[in-house]
Amino acid sequence: MTDQQEFSLRNIKMFKDVPEETLAIMEERCGWKTYAPHEQIIDRQSDSRDVYFITRGRARVVNYSASGREISFDDIGDGAVFGELAAIDGEPRSANVVALTQTTVATLSPKAFHEVLEECPSVAMSLMQRLAHIIRISVDRIMDLSTLGAHNRVYAELLRLARDRRIDNNQAEITPVPIHSDIASRVSTTRETVARVFGELTKKGLVERKGNTLVVTDMDRLQEMVEEFRGD
Amino acid sequence: MTDQQEFSLRNIKMFKDVPEETLAIMEERCGWKTYAPHEQIIDRQSDSRDVYFITRGRARVVNYSASGREISFDDIGDGAVFGELAAIDGEPRSANVVALTQTTVATLSPKAFHEVLEECPSVAMSLMQRLAHIIRISVDRIMDLSTLGAHNRVYAELLRLARDRRIDNNQAEITPVPIHSDIASRVSTTRETVARVFGELTKKGLVERKGNTLVVTDMDRLQEMVEEFRGD
Repeated sequence: MTDQQEFSLRNIKMFKDVPEETLAIMEERCGWKTYAPHEQIIDRQSDSRDVYFITRGRARVVNYSASGREISFDDIGDGAVFGELAAIDGEPRSANVVALTQTTVATLSPKAFHEVLEECPSVAMSLMQRLAHIIRISVDRIMDLSTLGAHNRVYAELLRLARDRRIDNNQAEITPVPIHSDIASRVSTTRETVARVFGELTKKGLVERKGNTLVVTDMDRLQEMVEEFRGD
Repeated sequence: MTDQQEFSLRNIKMFKDVPEETLAIMEERCGWKTYAPHEQIIDRQSDSRDVYFITRGRARVVNYSASGREISFDDIGDGAVFGELAAIDGEPRSANVVALTQTTVATLSPKAFHEVLEECPSVAMSLMQRLAHIIRISVDRIMDLSTLGAHNRVYAELLRLARDRRIDNNQAEITPVPIHSDIASRVSTTRETVARVFGELTKKGLVERKGNTLVVTDMDRLQEMVEEFRGD
């Protein structure tokens, strides 16, 4: 990636239909900052209401329980937006955001962001679609948390990962092998539970580790296992 | 309420800054329908992508577990919008919507709704604020489901209800007395668990029933009880 891309809004997905001239004006209005891996970009307690755009890197949206357990909401990369809720409604931050890799962000004040939304209906529509997508994922997660036990939530998450990495109708290869603590924080359980479930699935031959790849050998069976317990 | 109000978009909150003329054009484009109590307005399985506005009545957004247990997402009344996700992104419905009382709705096709959003930035902004609000509530619910047991989720819900009905700093009166099955479906537990928790709270003197009113006598203590267990 060239420096030009790193400090440009050209690759921000929600700006894809914004004319080059408008983008240039926005780029001048933006603040720019680069964060080291693990560095906090948004603190839930902070008063800032700026909106952030990732021009390079990867970050995690996350909250913590009182005991410090991580509940993660999303991992977002190049071209994504975050911090938009507070910029839209002026309310406090709803979550923390932490850099996963070295990450460069552009920031825009709520006022400047509102102006863009009013002037560019395509940006507003794209943002609404993103918000709708977040709500859909939240509804699924609330349903999973309300109706599935921890083991089944791990099966369901593994199935979600597998669906995007099919090698045929019933098999998938997930590279790199998912990290137990990442899955734990996405489905709200402990690392130990995830390790136990992966141990059981390996014993049953439903997953198989090949170097840095996790092979899911029977997605249909995994789906049945989720459904069996999607009882109450 | 007059017939004129029932078949007008004047009281729809997201249209409050829309000029009278534009509203009149929209009203002509709308379909209108009245539903009986308990009648289903949106079936999750349906192919429709219309957006709905409640001009009179009250409805519940709800999903069901495989065993038929109700997981409710929101109760919405006069002036509210629903069904907007499918209208925004064209994806399938995310939930069912059922009339709680006799309910009159106006419906708009996705195409007509997109035109309104493009032509009226105030409507787009109002919709974004609503979507942001839904996400914030979802984040709280995911945190509650991830970190609190069922008993504590009932305490937390009771506290949320009490906060809007304070009679002084530490007491609240909730009228009518909340229905156990409604609370159960909002916090994803069973009616029996809610009944048990209310029994315990009554014994401890933290809630007291007076006719059709539930008095919460010590909100600070209830808050402490939620916090005590917001451990893992």
